[in-house]
Amino acid sequence: MESYKGLSPSQFFYRNREIAGFSNPVRSLYQAVRELLENSLDATETHGILPNITLEIRPHTNNNQSDKVTIRIEDNGIGIPIAEVPNVFARVFYGSKYVLRQARGVFGLGVKMAVLYAQITTATPIYVKSSTIDSETEYEYKLFIDIERNLPIILQLNVFKKKKKWHGTIVELTIQGNWSQARRRIKEYIRRTALIAPYATIRLITPENSVEYKRVSRKLPEPPQIGKYHPRGVDIELLKMLIRAADKKLTLVDFLSKYFDGVGKKTALNFCKWAEFNPNHKIKRLTLSDLEKLANKMHQYDKWRRPKPLTLSPLGDTLLREGVRRILEPEFVTAISRPPSSYSGNPFIIETALAWGGKVPVSDSPLLLRFANRIPLLYDESVDVSRKIIDSIDWSIYKVKFPAPLAIITHICSTKIPFKGVGKEAIAEVPEVEKELNIAIRETARRLRRHISRIEKIYEIKRKEVTITKYMDEVARALSYIVNDDDSEEIIKKKLMKLLKKEIGKKGIVTGEMKNVAKAKTPRG
Amino acid sequence: MESYKGLSPSQFFYRNREIAGFSNPVRSLYQAVRELLENSLDATETHGILPNITLEIRPHTNNNQSDKVTIRIEDNGIGIPIAEVPNVFARVFYGSKYVLRQARGVFGLGVKMAVLYAQITTATPIYVKSSTIDSETEYEYKLFIDIERNLPIILQLNVFKKKKKWHGTIVELTIQGNWSQARRRIKEYIRRTALIAPYATIRLITPENSVEYKRVSRKLPEPPQIGKYHPRGVDIELLKMLIRAADKKLTLVDFLSKYFDGVGKKTALNFCKWAEFNPNHKIKRLTLSDLEKLANKMHQYDKWRRPKPLTLSPLGDTLLREGVRRILEPEFVTAISRPPSSYSGNPFIIETALAWGGKVPVSDSPLLLRFANRIPLLYDESVDVSRKIIDSIDWSIYKVKFPAPLAIITHICSTKIPFKGVGKEAIAEVPEVEKELNIAIRETARRLRRHISRIEKIYEIKRKEVTITKYMDEVARALSYIVNDDDSEEIIKKKLMKLLKKEIGKKGIVTGEMKNVAKAKTPRG
Repeated sequence: MESYKGLSPSQFFYRNREIAGFSNPVRSLYQAVRELLENSLDATETHGILPNITLEIRPHTNNNQSDKVTIRIEDNGIGIPIAEVPNVFARVFYGSKYVLRQARGVFGLGVKMAVLYAQITTATPIYVKSSTIDSETEYEYKLFIDIERNLPIILQLNVFKKKKKWHGTIVELTIQGNWSQARRRIKEYIRRTALIAPYATIRLITPENSVEYKRVSRKLPEPPQIGKYHPRGVDIELLKMLIRAADKKLTLVDFLSKYFDGVGKKTALNFCKWAEFNPNHKIKRLTLSDLEKLANKMHQYDKWRRPKPLTLSPLGDTLLREGVRRILEPEFVTAISRPPSSYSGNPFIIETALAWGGKVPVSDSPLLLRFANRIPLLYDESVDVSRKIIDSIDWSIYKVKFPAPLAIITHICSTKIPFKGVGKEAIAEVPEVEKELNIAIRETARRLRRHISRIEKIYEIKRKEVTITKYMDEVARALSYIVNDDDSEEIIKKKLMKLLKKEIGKKGIVTGEMKNVAKAKTPRG
Repeated sequence: MESYKGLSPSQFFYRNREIAGFSNPVRSLYQAVRELLENSLDATETHGILPNITLEIRPHTNNNQSDKVTIRIEDNGIGIPIAEVPNVFARVFYGSKYVLRQARGVFGLGVKMAVLYAQITTATPIYVKSSTIDSETEYEYKLFIDIERNLPIILQLNVFKKKKKWHGTIVELTIQGNWSQARRRIKEYIRRTALIAPYATIRLITPENSVEYKRVSRKLPEPPQIGKYHPRGVDIELLKMLIRAADKKLTLVDFLSKYFDGVGKKTALNFCKWAEFNPNHKIKRLTLSDLEKLANKMHQYDKWRRPKPLTLSPLGDTLLREGVRRILEPEFVTAISRPPSSYSGNPFIIETALAWGGKVPVSDSPLLLRFANRIPLLYDESVDVSRKIIDSIDWSIYKVKFPAPLAIITHICSTKIPFKGVGKEAIAEVPEVEKELNIAIRETARRLRRHISRIEKIYEIKRKEVTITKYMDEVARALSYIVNDDDSEEIIKKKLMKLLKKEIGKKGIVTGEMKNVAKAKTPRG
């Protein structure tokens, strides 16, 4: 006889923790650091605060058994209200991220997995200290998760009167982890986070040293707003949910214009006419088959406005360029922030950058740095849509011959990133996303080609200049001989030199730039 | 101000359905078929029943809007008890698969996702008819999921007196799907399922035709049993859970020998001595730090017995070979079923096969067919551990020069398959699994080398035979001239022929085999 039972979400993820990236002591340490850092960035940048984050990693060495590592993070974010702390850290599927707004975190799962992992590998609770901006107190918790019931267990709670004007969150937890093997990956992860968040100051304290990525800009991208659903993204359940929460006396046309992104009364009326719905139909009268038809028609209608990108917070080309410059130190960098687009009603923006030469490592194919809602993606590159596109491009069209010092940076912002799994590592091949990436990457590649052509031209002119200069003495002497004036040789030479500089100058090249180029790496295109 | 909230598991997966493979109408149709077929196989083979499964796919063509597809499956499995049907189909994280036993399904998620997807794309409920073996009734349900509460909604229930001796389950649901684009993948999936389940009869009825894979064997692999935890796989939470359910007066030594796989009283005593635990300590007296130490020591102790493979149900090399022969029709096939091994306390068995020539398609690298607990894996091959191993092998060592007609089949059985995601498509790089795969694949490759060498030798002898035969007449004539007897020419020729056959026979090659080889494809090694 089969025995049947239900699991709580905590039990499910306790049993299947590798799905969320907690598969072994190396990967789990990496994943825990990621989740904590991403929460800290969400708590700051999303709310208009310039992030100051300190991350400390302390492997325990006094213990020759399995390796334990303590992770401590402190941010200057908005803090978490005292009553919400237990659920936010110790209840799976709970959080503030379940709204239509771009955020690094989305699943309400990551930090709980870290807490769960601490609990099952080292039997230690998570320590949280927090204070919100207007709170008059600060509070400390020690928490476990009641796995069977998916509820927090509060081991300790202390509340203090706030002395200095502090707000933010401090989290400390101890997990089984392997620092020596995870180190390289974690450091790379933080380096890339610094690239995509040039407005953040991040300190990383490890047993070896202390690294600080100081902000290179005080300009924070416009924070995202919480948005409405786009009419193209609906399904029957969403309609039911919205109707359940709405005033039952609303007419269809009022319902549509109140609850959906970019839908005014006029658009709603036009849609109703096209879809053959009575605009004055009361929503409470809609049957299930009406809802099915409504959802279908809303999908098909092609005159909705594009989703508004207010829910998104792209970096912008300037900040992206600064970020790339700070981390990769290339000879040439260019960046693009595409206009908003959408897939199944979810708005998204593609940003890409291209870095060339300088300290960009030379390799056999373009180095790819992927980001999604400002999260660096380090694993599973081979199944990511960006890799697919880059590999499909014939780079010789753009004067690039490999091996070459070429790096491509891709960034997708969306209220719903089409990740391939809860581990958040690879982006699926959504056609609309693919198209936008393709346009953006090829545009940066064309700019690179212009750059390489220009460099080639500069070298060509430089070569001519050197050749002409070589014969200058001879010509000057000959001319001074013709005019029969020995003293004129120096004057003629100077005049010729001036002429040469003038001619080269006409080609739009000033000496200063030439020096820079001369210092830079030889292009290989 | 941030707003916080909790989600039910249904809500979570409703929002993130692409994580479970329900990302678009093509992939969702594939995924729904998979989940239904895997459930049917689990309900039969796992319980010693030879599977008879009929799968019907009916795209709706009367509808020029979004495509709807109805999927209907019928199996002769053990059936689902009447009271469990609603939860099994319409409650996320509920099922009978949460035990230590090899099964195709593991997450208790798949079929619910299909129900959810039907509900949100076509607003139709799932239809289920079932009857268990001993039940005197059969029953029909129509079900929706209450997404907010993660509970079933029963729209309809009919109970009938059972007339004929039927048991099994019939499921029918209608989802948005794209049959023309999903067709190839679904057919390949079923073909591969037929390969790994040669004891199953599977009928596939589609608008184009009806295909039947008839069983080629009535031998079912030994069904898996439900097992205990292996002491190496424990963590603190598991210990707490087991102790909570156990008699509190148990001593540590009795607890260990009662609840863990392969631990007798003697092993338990030896372990306690090594780990410096008092074997007579009552388990209710164990503190949290005791449990931490206990879990650590249980991990480290290297004298536990290997996990028992009774929970597993490998196919065995004979069945695997038959399956490969039925589907790939190769010239040469060999298969290996490795002895059981384990990772983190989970037992697993690796089986691999190698097929060569015949109808195996010629390609530039080995064709890979991956299976996990008899599930064909079709997506994300490039990040799977099997692909990694195959690509790391220098095949010229085994006399294979590409392009070549070579296929590698890998199968991992485990109570816990280390999948990379809930989509169940790629196996993670667990070192123990990697090692076993490597051994098995290389062994089949060595067998292939012997086969190719033998074929080469046969061709060599065949060539010699032809050459010798060519001069036979001449030699016979010359000899008959020497013995000065014209009539002897024919006799001498016959004798020489006999001698030649005998010599070739000595090399262990009979004419019958040679004919087979001559018909087979030329090896390319």
